[in-house]
Amino acid sequence: MVTDNSTTTTAALLNDFLLPDSPMRLDGGISILPKVIKAVDFARSQGYLVIWVVREHDSLGRDVELFRRHLYATGKPKPALKGSKGSELIDGLVIKDEDYKVVKTRFSAFFNTNLHSVLQGAGIDSLVVIGIQTPNCIRQTVFDGVALDYKSVTVIVDATAAATPHVHAANIYDMKNIGVATPTLEEWCQN
Amino acid sequence: MVTDNSTTTTAALLNDFLLPDSPMRLDGGISILPKVIKAVDFARSQGYLVIWVVREHDSLGRDVELFRRHLYATGKPKPALKGSKGSELIDGLVIKDEDYKVVKTRFSAFFNTNLHSVLQGAGIDSLVVIGIQTPNCIRQTVFDGVALDYKSVTVIVDATAAATPHVHAANIYDMKNIGVATPTLEEWCQN
Repeated sequence: MVTDNSTTTTAALLNDFLLPDSPMRLDGGISILPKVIKAVDFARSQGYLVIWVVREHDSLGRDVELFRRHLYATGKPKPALKGSKGSELIDGLVIKDEDYKVVKTRFSAFFNTNLHSVLQGAGIDSLVVIGIQTPNCIRQTVFDGVALDYKSVTVIVDATAAATPHVHAANIYDMKNIGVATPTLEEWCQN
Repeated sequence: MVTDNSTTTTAALLNDFLLPDSPMRLDGGISILPKVIKAVDFARSQGYLVIWVVREHDSLGRDVELFRRHLYATGKPKPALKGSKGSELIDGLVIKDEDYKVVKTRFSAFFNTNLHSVLQGAGIDSLVVIGIQTPNCIRQTVFDGVALDYKSVTVIVDATAAATPHVHAANIYDMKNIGVATPTLEEWCQN
């Protein structure tokens, strides 16, 4: 199913969403890091394009969703603030020269970004999505990928995470129902 | 919360997705019809714009999601086929002259449609979403509404439905987590 025309897209693996002392951390998010690293290594070994999708927000929060703007008031945490340490990829993840970085301000990696154009230009028709978190960035990217007619859309179930295993499983279930492949990392590497 | 600048958007209440003899019916979908009718009546009484979002597909399935194209082969059911009885609104729902109809070919009512332009042109900043089904058309429209900075996005929990109550509840939970209001019809009418 996965071909040379594949990309591995990793979402939102930033310090602010993973480090234990961050007010915006996703509990359990850090636990998938080893599998994310392995998935990226495997993707590189297969010659897949690796895309790093990150949030970067304005210090006044003018480019963040309305329901989160209060987090950018004076004295508030300002998650994924552009240029801050919190908006950097967590230690262990490295953007290589041959990778591509997409900056977004909404859940879907396709929303108001050039991701679809870049993938079309590169002749890529298969998406593999990893990172956090399953109900938001992962699912929205996946549903948009399906809507945009990518030939195959895959979520590696143990290289993605949500706030609870229950939320993760419920979202994986819905994605399966729209034709999304949901292998484990081990299964994916064997295909 | 709901103002004169509101719209009530109803999704996918077509014969093919509701009638008991349809191969594409959503079990339990028909049960919300009385509440959908009440919600639309209430919206009209408040002067809200009522928008009917419907799928209409090509007989060859060329405009349907890749994972569903097999349903448009010869002898297959061809759900929401343009011009067919199955693509009409179910009995009991009526599009009035002052309403607006949006034809879509993907889950989100915003995807490749003029919905956002129409709402912006009408000065509408609040969405109320009803219809079927919760994990797909409802949720994708809602997430896009949030991404597009609508001031308030509401899902009436008992005027929407999924294949099972469990799937419905899991999706309502995720939507609440991104700031979506989820009243019952009774609560919504009292606001």
